[in-house]
Amino acid sequence: MAIAVGIDVGGTQTKAAVVTDSGQILLELTEPTASALPPSEVPAFVAGLISRLLAEASTDSTQMAGACVGLPGVVEHRLGTALSCPNLRTWEGIPLGPRVTELAGVPVWIERDANLSVLGEVWQGAARGAIHCVCFTLGTGIGAGVLVDGRLLRGAWGGAGEIGHIIVARDGPRCSCGNRGCLEALASASAIAREGRHAADRAAESTLWTLASGDRDAITAEVVFGAAEQGDATARRVVATATEYLGLGVASVVNVFNPEVVVLGGGMAAAGHQVLYPVRQAVQLRAREPLAARVRVELAQLGMQAGMLGGARAVFLAGQG
Amino acid sequence: MAIAVGIDVGGTQTKAAVVTDSGQILLELTEPTASALPPSEVPAFVAGLISRLLAEASTDSTQMAGACVGLPGVVEHRLGTALSCPNLRTWEGIPLGPRVTELAGVPVWIERDANLSVLGEVWQGAARGAIHCVCFTLGTGIGAGVLVDGRLLRGAWGGAGEIGHIIVARDGPRCSCGNRGCLEALASASAIAREGRHAADRAAESTLWTLASGDRDAITAEVVFGAAEQGDATARRVVATATEYLGLGVASVVNVFNPEVVVLGGGMAAAGHQVLYPVRQAVQLRAREPLAARVRVELAQLGMQAGMLGGARAVFLAGQG
Repeated sequence: MAIAVGIDVGGTQTKAAVVTDSGQILLELTEPTASALPPSEVPAFVAGLISRLLAEASTDSTQMAGACVGLPGVVEHRLGTALSCPNLRTWEGIPLGPRVTELAGVPVWIERDANLSVLGEVWQGAARGAIHCVCFTLGTGIGAGVLVDGRLLRGAWGGAGEIGHIIVARDGPRCSCGNRGCLEALASASAIAREGRHAADRAAESTLWTLASGDRDAITAEVVFGAAEQGDATARRVVATATEYLGLGVASVVNVFNPEVVVLGGGMAAAGHQVLYPVRQAVQLRAREPLAARVRVELAQLGMQAGMLGGARAVFLAGQG
Repeated sequence: MAIAVGIDVGGTQTKAAVVTDSGQILLELTEPTASALPPSEVPAFVAGLISRLLAEASTDSTQMAGACVGLPGVVEHRLGTALSCPNLRTWEGIPLGPRVTELAGVPVWIERDANLSVLGEVWQGAARGAIHCVCFTLGTGIGAGVLVDGRLLRGAWGGAGEIGHIIVARDGPRCSCGNRGCLEALASASAIAREGRHAADRAAESTLWTLASGDRDAITAEVVFGAAEQGDATARRVVATATEYLGLGVASVVNVFNPEVVVLGGGMAAAGHQVLYPVRQAVQLRAREPLAARVRVELAQLGMQAGMLGGARAVFLAGQG
């Protein structure tokens, strides 16, 4: 048995696990991300996580194949460096992979977080065995990891896979990236919350207000999905519009990548069939027929563990050459 | 010196060439595509082209590495079969690669035409040396070949790369694929011709009518670009809208693939800076900054020879393993 450590660094929380080469999680920990550390101390924070996990798992160190760290940003995989990490500015531009490798005494890779999710879902989740897969992370933003013929799509400088920034409406709302009409600006959890609030302003009787206890700022995507589930017409319109755009984006992705499986993950996937069914519908109506007929569209199965499992998988794959 | 045959089968014309491994075209021929042949005779048509070329080039047959045939459709590369070829229905579903290999006595591969264009431009054209490249074919439709880390993007069933069917306008005009608002329905030569005619209907004084000798059906994309170049306001609006959508599509592609180079080819590329500049502008404004700052957007350099050169290149690459 070989083991590896998968680490999923988020803007607020970091999750890390020791995983066997058969996909079993031996030990798992979650702690706040040291997002305010000076750059010089970031490698020691990551190496510390690895040491603690290995000590607590009390595994034989000869079994340890290495670690892989997922970061929310643009990652230059070959250099082990994050080129851009908007929520973790002090983590940018440092040779994280090489430094942590040195400190931890095991090989450490750095990868874009969405890339680890797709590796996880293909290994142990909703897309088991697929070699052509797109795995969406639907949350505050929309990210995606893409597997093409069994390989991660990284692009020339680690910036590929930003499917949240496909432009689906020329004059659409402003996106966090500065552009207008990106998929993320129309179909992410933050877009749904924004549209939910606007819609509530014109609908005093809406269940949105009940579920949010009258507090406009408490109208989140979760509240909008909840109100829609209870039959609230205002919330249903917001969900219908956002998921139609999401479906357009997924249909475009099917036309561009011809994947076997599209996986819908991230926090928004908790809305289940409210997200899944309209996306399947849009793919059937709007992707090209021979591709739409064969592609599977599924909810993610690994939840918050996808990144850790995918990190371990990345290590085992690197070991295979 | 090794040689290979590259064949570019279009809906009306077929172009074929003998090409050396240094990219020199020794001999080239163009003839009408046998689009109405019964399926059983298609392999002999292709094998006949190969034999004729080799006989006329009077090259040493031991130098011949093989041939690659580009088809306008969905191609199952491993089987050497076109799954779907809307303009060449009798060419669909037959084991073309294996049959032509048998008849011609040399290895013969089948590939999607846009894939050969990107191989050609990367080998001898506008994207020389790139390993991450998207090459658009802008014509009646919009196709693209995508090179990811030096490999062709084919997808699960040979259907990848249909960037013309990214949806850029939810309620946009009907596309040839049956969907609405595809990039192809808004920014292809046929979309420009369609919009040019509609605009001319409301502009009796437009240069469009002069250039088309008063014949509405003679208002083609070429006429629209010509009138715009002469300063006609009606034509300029049509060109501006279509090229803005094209730019949105290219910006999306930059965000998804993070290519080093985007190449604009196909008949519409003859409009030169009228296409190139607005697309470059849109990429700067609408793709993510770190990617937009580094990507090059260029006009194709190989014109009608891209497919033949790319076909030969595909053969030489296959020979390398």
